[in-house]
Amino acid sequence: MTRKLHLNAFLMGVGHHEAAWRHPRTEPARLTDVRHYQELARIAERGTLDSVFLADGVALNGNVGHNALGGLEPLTLLSALAAVTDHIGLIATVSTTYNEPFHVARKFASLDHISGGRAGWNIVTSAGEAEARNFGVVRPSHADRYARATEFLDVVRKLWDSWEDDAILGDRAAGRYADTGKIHPIDHAGEHFAVSGPLNTSRPPQGHPLLVQAGSSEDGKEFAARHAEAVFTAQQTLREGQEFYADLKRRLASYGRRQEDLLVLPGISPIIGSTEREALRLEKELEELIVPAYGLAQLSTMTGIELDEDALDKPLPDVPAETEGAQSRRKLVVDLARRENLTVRQLIGRLAGGRGHRVVAGTPEQIADQLQEWFFSGAADGFNVMPPILPAGLGDFVDHVVPELRIRGLFRHEYEGRTLRENYGLARPASRYASGREAVVAR
Amino acid sequence: MTRKLHLNAFLMGVGHHEAAWRHPRTEPARLTDVRHYQELARIAERGTLDSVFLADGVALNGNVGHNALGGLEPLTLLSALAAVTDHIGLIATVSTTYNEPFHVARKFASLDHISGGRAGWNIVTSAGEAEARNFGVVRPSHADRYARATEFLDVVRKLWDSWEDDAILGDRAAGRYADTGKIHPIDHAGEHFAVSGPLNTSRPPQGHPLLVQAGSSEDGKEFAARHAEAVFTAQQTLREGQEFYADLKRRLASYGRRQEDLLVLPGISPIIGSTEREALRLEKELEELIVPAYGLAQLSTMTGIELDEDALDKPLPDVPAETEGAQSRRKLVVDLARRENLTVRQLIGRLAGGRGHRVVAGTPEQIADQLQEWFFSGAADGFNVMPPILPAGLGDFVDHVVPELRIRGLFRHEYEGRTLRENYGLARPASRYASGREAVVAR
Repeated sequence: MTRKLHLNAFLMGVGHHEAAWRHPRTEPARLTDVRHYQELARIAERGTLDSVFLADGVALNGNVGHNALGGLEPLTLLSALAAVTDHIGLIATVSTTYNEPFHVARKFASLDHISGGRAGWNIVTSAGEAEARNFGVVRPSHADRYARATEFLDVVRKLWDSWEDDAILGDRAAGRYADTGKIHPIDHAGEHFAVSGPLNTSRPPQGHPLLVQAGSSEDGKEFAARHAEAVFTAQQTLREGQEFYADLKRRLASYGRRQEDLLVLPGISPIIGSTEREALRLEKELEELIVPAYGLAQLSTMTGIELDEDALDKPLPDVPAETEGAQSRRKLVVDLARRENLTVRQLIGRLAGGRGHRVVAGTPEQIADQLQEWFFSGAADGFNVMPPILPAGLGDFVDHVVPELRIRGLFRHEYEGRTLRENYGLARPASRYASGREAVVAR
Repeated sequence: MTRKLHLNAFLMGVGHHEAAWRHPRTEPARLTDVRHYQELARIAERGTLDSVFLADGVALNGNVGHNALGGLEPLTLLSALAAVTDHIGLIATVSTTYNEPFHVARKFASLDHISGGRAGWNIVTSAGEAEARNFGVVRPSHADRYARATEFLDVVRKLWDSWEDDAILGDRAAGRYADTGKIHPIDHAGEHFAVSGPLNTSRPPQGHPLLVQAGSSEDGKEFAARHAEAVFTAQQTLREGQEFYADLKRRLASYGRRQEDLLVLPGISPIIGSTEREALRLEKELEELIVPAYGLAQLSTMTGIELDEDALDKPLPDVPAETEGAQSRRKLVVDLARRENLTVRQLIGRLAGGRGHRVVAGTPEQIADQLQEWFFSGAADGFNVMPPILPAGLGDFVDHVVPELRIRGLFRHEYEGRTLRENYGLARPASRYASGREAVVAR
C-alpha cells in the first residue's frame, strides 16, 4: 500500500490567527456556540480528515481584552461533536498534572464508546503558572510533571485494560451479565497514585483511545517515543522538521517500537487563496488586524521577558535561559527572530498566524507542494492543519487542498476504517490482563 | 398561575429494576450505546418532562456478575444528549470529594453553553469505600465530606460568577474583545481549596447551572436547604414524604430562602399496565428475574451486614448503628423491613424495583392518582421518575401518564421557558461581582 498522509484539523475558536476574531469572515460570538464546532467537524469529515483536535489549558491564558478567549472544555465539547459525525476522530487535550487518572480513563473510555471508537487523548503536563494557581499548588518542576505523567498514563492504561474484551456475557437466561474473572482490579500503588480499579466503564472500543503528545523538550520527546502514537509539533523550517522527525523516530527502537507506531504531524497554518495574490491579501488583512498589545503579551509569555510598546521596533532582547515552562517553544521563537533578523513587531506578525507554527500562504497547489515536500523529505507523516480563520479556512482546505492531495495520490478518498486507530493505521492494544489466545490475536 | 408539578426522568442503563437487563423488553447491549440514551432523552422531551438525570459513582459498585453495570460517565454522555435535543434539562451527578472545583465549574459551564442553558449538577459527596480506593485516600468522614462540599460549591459559584454577564464586548473595530474589568479573579483561599480564577469559560447561560442534591442525612438536609434548588429523595410512604418535605422547607427560612426556591422531588418507579392486572404481571415478571445473589450483595452494601443465601427466608438481622456511609438509605431499608415484617427475600423483592425508592404498579390513572395525592398533600413538588425498564417504561409514562396529568391540569402542555431554570420556575442568579444596575435587574 502506498504511504498516505494523515491530516488532523486543529480547531481553535474562530481561527488560529490571533486577529481572526476581528476579520469580517468570522463570527466571534460563535466561540461558545456548539453549532460552530459541529459545522467544523462536519467540514473536516466531508474532507475525510483523520481527526479534529482541541487544545486546552486550565487557566485563562492570554489577554482576553484583545482576543476571543473563554471557550468550551474540550472533552465536553467532543461528545457533542461525536453525536453529529460518523467517521472523524475526536482528540481532546487533558492535563496529567491537575487531574486524577480514574476520571481521565473513564471520560475517554466514555467518549470512545459514544463515538464508536474515535477518541484520542492529547497528553499535556500544564507548564503554566496560572494553571497551578487554579489548583492551589506551586507549579511542579518539569521533571516532576513528566514523572507524574508517566505514572498517570500507566494507571490510565491499566484501567482501560481492566475489563477484558470478552468480559461481558449478557447471558439473560443464566442471569450472568459479566464474567467477573475477566474484570480485574488493577491495584496500582506507585509514587503518585494508588488506584484499586477496575474501571466502572467497560473496555473502550479501541482498547485504548489514541495517545497523542505535543511536547518537544527532551523529556517530552522521550515521553512521546515511549508512549505516544501521534505527535503534534511546531517546526518552522524543513531542516528543523527533518531533524525533529529523525530524532523522534530514532528513539522508538529503545522502547521496542517500530517506525510506524508513531506518526509525526507538524503544525501548518495554510492561508489559502485561489491565486497567490489573494492568499497574500488575506494574510495582510489579518496582519493589519493584529492588536500590538496582545502580541506583546503573548510574546512576553512565550519568552519569559516583559515587553512593552517601546520594544516594538527593536530586535528581540536577550532571553534568559530558564529550566521551567514551555522551553522548546521559547527556543523556536528566539531562533526565528535571530535567523531572520526580525524586530519585535515583525516577530509578532510572524507568530500571530500560528503561535510559532509554520504559516504558508498560497494557492491550493502551492500548499499541497509544501505538504508533499515535507511528507517525502522525512519531515512529516502528515499534518496538524491550523486554519487562520474558521470555518472559512477549513472549508477552503477541504474543498481545494484535499482534492489536490487526492489527485496526487497522497490522501484517502474515503475512510479506511471505522475507528480513529484504523484510520491512523495503528494497532489495537490487547488487554494486559487477557490470558491465552485472545491476547495474541488482538490487534 | 396554577401550581404545576415538575418531572425528571432518572435514566439508568436499561431500567431501574435490578433485573431489567434480563427482561425480554430490554436490550442490555445498549448500556454503552449513546443512541439508547439519545432515544430516552427524546422520549422525555416528547413528554415535556423538565429534565433527564444520570446518577453516578466513581467505582464499580455492585456485582457486575449479575447486573448490567459499567456504563458511561454522565457529563460526557449529557453533551451527546444536548446535541440531539432542544428543551430538556440535563442533570449530571458529580462528586465534590474526588474532584477539583475548577474542572467541575468549567465542565458544567461548558455543558450549559452547549445545551443553551439546560445543565444541572447533582452534588454528591461519595460515601463509598471503593470510591476512596480509586483515589488513593482513606474515605473522609461524613462531616469532612460535607465541609469540603460546602467550600467546593462556594468556589464553583465564584468561578461561574467570574465573568459578568456583559463582560464580552466583541468590538472588532476597536480590537476590544472583552472588558477585562468585568472578568474577575476569585482569589479563593480556604481550608480545602486555593483557586485564583477567573474561569476560562465565559459565564454560563443560566448564570449558574441548576443545583441538585440527594442526600437525606442531617448534613445532607442542611446542605440542601442552604444550597440546592431541587432535591431527589427516596420516601416510601406518604407520611414519610410529608415529614421530609415539611422538614426541608422549614429549614429554608434560616438561609433567607423562600419555599419556592427549592423543589422536592421524591423518586417513584411506575410499573405501568393498560390494566392493573397487566401492571402486576410486569412487576411479577421482573421479580421472577431477580438473581438472589445480586440482591443479597446489594442489601449487604446498603445495611452494612454480610448476608448469604441462608438469610433469605429469615427476617432481616439487627443492623449495627454506624456513623459513616449512606445513613438515610440504611434507615429507610430497615424501617421498611420492620414495618411490613418482611423476610430478606421479600425485602430484596421490594428493593429490586428502585433501590429503596417507592414502586407503584398500576394503570396510568392509578399512577396519576398517586402523583396527584403526594403533590396536593405536601409531600412533593414533582417527581423523579424511575422507569423499571428502559426505554419501554419511559415511553409508557410519557404516552399514558403524562396525558392523564395534563388532563387534570397538573402538568405543562409545552415548555414554559428556554432554560432548565425557566422550566423549573427558578431565578437566574446574578454575578456576585456585578456592580450597580445589572446586579439588581438580573434574575
